[in-house]
Amino acid sequence: MKKLLTVLLLLSTLLAACGRKSTATPAGGGLPADAAAVAAERGLTQDDIYAALKTYTPSGQLDPYIMIASGGQSGQVLVLGVPSMRILKVIGVFTPEPWQGYGFGGSGDKVLEEGYVDGKEIKWGDTHHPGLSETKGEYDGQFAFINDKANARLAVIDLRDFDTKQIIKNPNAIVDHGGTFVTPNTEYVVEGPQYATPIGWEYAPLAEYKDKYRGLITFWAFDRLKGRVDESKSFQIELPPYWQDLCDAGKAVSDGWVFCNSFNTELATGGAPDAPPFEAGTTKNDTDYLHIINWKKAEEVFQAGKAETINGMAVIRLQTAIDEGLLYFTPEPKSPHGSDVTPGGEYVVVGGKLDPHVTIYSFDKIQKAIAAGGFEKDQYGVPVIPLDQSMEAQVELGLGPLHTVYDDKGYAYTSLFLDSAVARWTLGGPYASKHPEQPWTLVQKLPVQYNIGHIAAAEGDTASPDGQYVVALNKWSIDRFANVGPLLPQNFQLVDISQTGDQMKVLYDLPIGMAEPHYAQIIKADKLKPFEVYPEVGWNPDTMSVDPNAVTEPAQARVERNGSTVEIWMVVVRSHYTPEIVEVNQGDHVIWHLTNIERQRDATHGFGLSGYNINLSLEPGEAQTVEFDATQPGTFAFFCTEFCSALHLEMAGYFLVKP
Amino acid sequence: MKKLLTVLLLLSTLLAACGRKSTATPAGGGLPADAAAVAAERGLTQDDIYAALKTYTPSGQLDPYIMIASGGQSGQVLVLGVPSMRILKVIGVFTPEPWQGYGFGGSGDKVLEEGYVDGKEIKWGDTHHPGLSETKGEYDGQFAFINDKANARLAVIDLRDFDTKQIIKNPNAIVDHGGTFVTPNTEYVVEGPQYATPIGWEYAPLAEYKDKYRGLITFWAFDRLKGRVDESKSFQIELPPYWQDLCDAGKAVSDGWVFCNSFNTELATGGAPDAPPFEAGTTKNDTDYLHIINWKKAEEVFQAGKAETINGMAVIRLQTAIDEGLLYFTPEPKSPHGSDVTPGGEYVVVGGKLDPHVTIYSFDKIQKAIAAGGFEKDQYGVPVIPLDQSMEAQVELGLGPLHTVYDDKGYAYTSLFLDSAVARWTLGGPYASKHPEQPWTLVQKLPVQYNIGHIAAAEGDTASPDGQYVVALNKWSIDRFANVGPLLPQNFQLVDISQTGDQMKVLYDLPIGMAEPHYAQIIKADKLKPFEVYPEVGWNPDTMSVDPNAVTEPAQARVERNGSTVEIWMVVVRSHYTPEIVEVNQGDHVIWHLTNIERQRDATHGFGLSGYNINLSLEPGEAQTVEFDATQPGTFAFFCTEFCSALHLEMAGYFLVKP
Repeated sequence: MKKLLTVLLLLSTLLAACGRKSTATPAGGGLPADAAAVAAERGLTQDDIYAALKTYTPSGQLDPYIMIASGGQSGQVLVLGVPSMRILKVIGVFTPEPWQGYGFGGSGDKVLEEGYVDGKEIKWGDTHHPGLSETKGEYDGQFAFINDKANARLAVIDLRDFDTKQIIKNPNAIVDHGGTFVTPNTEYVVEGPQYATPIGWEYAPLAEYKDKYRGLITFWAFDRLKGRVDESKSFQIELPPYWQDLCDAGKAVSDGWVFCNSFNTELATGGAPDAPPFEAGTTKNDTDYLHIINWKKAEEVFQAGKAETINGMAVIRLQTAIDEGLLYFTPEPKSPHGSDVTPGGEYVVVGGKLDPHVTIYSFDKIQKAIAAGGFEKDQYGVPVIPLDQSMEAQVELGLGPLHTVYDDKGYAYTSLFLDSAVARWTLGGPYASKHPEQPWTLVQKLPVQYNIGHIAAAEGDTASPDGQYVVALNKWSIDRFANVGPLLPQNFQLVDISQTGDQMKVLYDLPIGMAEPHYAQIIKADKLKPFEVYPEVGWNPDTMSVDPNAVTEPAQARVERNGSTVEIWMVVVRSHYTPEIVEVNQGDHVIWHLTNIERQRDATHGFGLSGYNINLSLEPGEAQTVEFDATQPGTFAFFCTEFCSALHLEMAGYFLVKP
Repeated sequence: MKKLLTVLLLLSTLLAACGRKSTATPAGGGLPADAAAVAAERGLTQDDIYAALKTYTPSGQLDPYIMIASGGQSGQVLVLGVPSMRILKVIGVFTPEPWQGYGFGGSGDKVLEEGYVDGKEIKWGDTHHPGLSETKGEYDGQFAFINDKANARLAVIDLRDFDTKQIIKNPNAIVDHGGTFVTPNTEYVVEGPQYATPIGWEYAPLAEYKDKYRGLITFWAFDRLKGRVDESKSFQIELPPYWQDLCDAGKAVSDGWVFCNSFNTELATGGAPDAPPFEAGTTKNDTDYLHIINWKKAEEVFQAGKAETINGMAVIRLQTAIDEGLLYFTPEPKSPHGSDVTPGGEYVVVGGKLDPHVTIYSFDKIQKAIAAGGFEKDQYGVPVIPLDQSMEAQVELGLGPLHTVYDDKGYAYTSLFLDSAVARWTLGGPYASKHPEQPWTLVQKLPVQYNIGHIAAAEGDTASPDGQYVVALNKWSIDRFANVGPLLPQNFQLVDISQTGDQMKVLYDLPIGMAEPHYAQIIKADKLKPFEVYPEVGWNPDTMSVDPNAVTEPAQARVERNGSTVEIWMVVVRSHYTPEIVEVNQGDHVIWHLTNIERQRDATHGFGLSGYNINLSLEPGEAQTVEFDATQPGTFAFFCTEFCSALHLEMAGYFLVKP
């Protein structure tokens, strides 16, 4: 009888869904027999059918959530739809990307060049933790930020056109990890350090590690109107060389503070095979230090002129930070990874990779302890708040807890790397009334495949997480996908967290075979307001205004010679370039302005120039300028590299370089 | 009653599927009520449910088909699973790709350098038409080939490790399009031309277009044992400057022949705004020429020494090709695009973009006409077979027919760009008995979203297509996906062709937001036999053998100085590098050998070196060598860029460069 009721419920709901246009409603109505046959033929279980219906997104239906994920060592940023788990875009950030024309002659070249290290060309990055701009602790959909661990750089992406606008090199660090995290109104984008080096990564032998090597946390001031980081208003704080790891900014009650963990308080300097490898040396101590930093006070100290300028950057020295009461430590379980502030800002959750617990710190207790004072100090003189004065609770979850995110029901979700599982557990304090279970209690461990690193939740880093979904960012996929060689994709698993209790379910496996994403943000899609086409014809995506060299109608198209400089103003529209033939002399300097005058959405044109390493993507309304020397003589073709019309192949021209 | 039967059938099949492990079988058995509720809540129609169950691929289930698609102007190749439509891998080919460590210090650098144009660094490509190696006209799963239209280059990908092994620059052409197509036993990889230039792309004014500009078709001899193109055994045929487009190799009865179309028999040289643009100039004539080339005879001519060597490459001159009977033309509808040989080799189907028909040519008729002889000649002296002596049939399909693929039921599928539709139509001759409809008849036009370019079918380019699926490679997506800015993804739509008649259905929309794929091959997954890990520790993916500098155990790890050259032999394993500290002097030449000694599948390690633009991906067993000058003084970190273990962050070391 129960079965029949289930079936009848199914039937009625399916019939209710029939309001939407269906191209092939079967004669009998109800669930098509062919669907049932397909389920049987493909061996789908009941859970599989649930998952399929929960994630399948029909043609033209839009995903309600957008995930912005780092692309790891690809150097890029990935944009995905949730719950369909489809990659909507890969944004070129630290690595040239010709589909977007990024780094092949257009304005992206300048952005990439800003990121060179002391003039050395760097054309990749190791992106780790994307941050989204926030207003009052909520994602506002305006900007995304991402760090490059490999070279200590930061990039700014404008979410109006999903285009990288700025890369900024940290002048005093050569490697980072704990970036990017934003303060609740995007006053600052926080870049935490990692492997300590002397400030400015000057040479110093490892024997001088304790004295000369340092950590550095950077507060990049963000100018929202300009859409750029303002270096002149940014500052750094010198830290002991403890290999600081991830950070998180406080919010609401803890606004004004930042919390970072660390994992080499041993000051290990490696040296295998002659000395213990870092792996052993950095994990000797039972505890490391959670760094508790008062950034609002640090800002005052910086503005009061108490910072030192090093390589053009304001640095608050460690002793100043101690003296001014900006920096405190408290012990944390060995080799911690995540440092994650609860939605209301009351707690900081730290996962210790080599400890089966998460440790929950109370901001209120920390404040009371700081007010009370009288601490021991670490070897660099930083005050250390005893664990019993800072800790609220510990919850035993399992092996390898790394990173924690939150939902709307008072649950926390922690990735367990060694267990290959997502742990759901309950928060206490003001969250205890939101869930039926005891506070600070493990509720469910959901196996994931395999070796989960970070975990992301819908609106999970905001003051009001949405629940519904978390995504497990699994590092290994092993047997999950068809074999495509010894380099395997990562595996993003979408997890349904809509039900309370132990009802989490894996819904979908998405291979990521182009990157190793570390972390992601998931934002409500309707918070984003991207351009459909550029607002005006002749739009320069760098200045975000009409370019003075834009040519908005074919009559303005022309070629002008001035000495050995040839300047071209070209109009681009379906299905031709005007002018179509450009002839120069070998050695001429060529300045080529192109404007796509289309106003139809998706009417993008490319501009590929054979033999010259040039390719642009000109989106509707976009203007770009390419500048180069005509060093190679001969007959070259340029052509549209974005299939635009039935006569797309005819959209071509010749570039003649007379020897 | 019908409904009830449907429901009962569903129930029984679902219960049958319950043999597979289900983590949450509902108490009542049968279809979970929550699945029905989800379908209603998400507004899924009956067709949607069918499509969801037809495509959803549960965790750990493997796709039966693998699609290998070009990545357009991204310069890369995409690997996808069908029917799940998930991207399994992006292979770095013409553009550096740091996730794979391709172009950032390892052996990929050499491959990319082979593709430079006259010494000019070219770091992107415009990939168009991937080909798969074949044996007896069937995909054999060994190699993939891809062209770069922008610079007339060809790349070879080994499907044992999905790694690009070779890039070869065409020494006489600067732009191509009609590549790559393989002959039935992969004797040759065919690269067709496109925008004509003087041979070797030497400078010549456009006024001399007719006399000096030429098309060139290249037959790259493939050495299957070496896995490389052998230039010394390759040859080219000079063609009139007719902007040859796509080609296809004959098979079975037509083995030994190649068929290419063309679209500028007008010899238009553009010149907008002062003369008609190419768009108009190249579409004046009602017909262009299908090129019919006897490659087996051309091979004999080449081997008989009748080719001329130009820029190191054997070129059969146009007059020789005419004299030796290698080259014939026959008229084809204006501005053709696809040239597609039927599975048995009997027919060539050509779509004329500006003509609503596809034209079907009979190889048998062509052979009879050639035997009979006595043709008119075109302006370059090439014999032209009259259309009534070569044509078998014409089928009116709709607006903008581009490209045709085949199934196992005697149907052909043609993309209609302007109609935004997939046309299913019937073949005649030996295929007529396979389908219930009249031969040479349109059966169904399925709308797709939007502007379909190419179309791919399961095993569709082989002598025995599989049916089941075609994929529409749509160029525009407009309103299909959430807005992620003015550069929109492409849209791959999976189409169910398993039913006969007018029962084609769109099953799935996959955004491609990283590339503009042009064409794809779909191969049965079980034909591929990729390595799970490299066969032996110390494997060099370039030589596909153990590297003499591999270090297979930590005891061999060392640093040696020889004058100003420092050579490092490094062992890489979870979770450390040995040696861990490397110190050199500024200006030293550094040769760094690294071996990942892991044997566990998916145990890849990275090697990122800050400040030096170096990143490797070391898959289990892989050995790589990086060579560079230590130009930048200071303290740098190197670290694992592929999350490998709970102590992955501790897998790091210092590279000290003493000023």
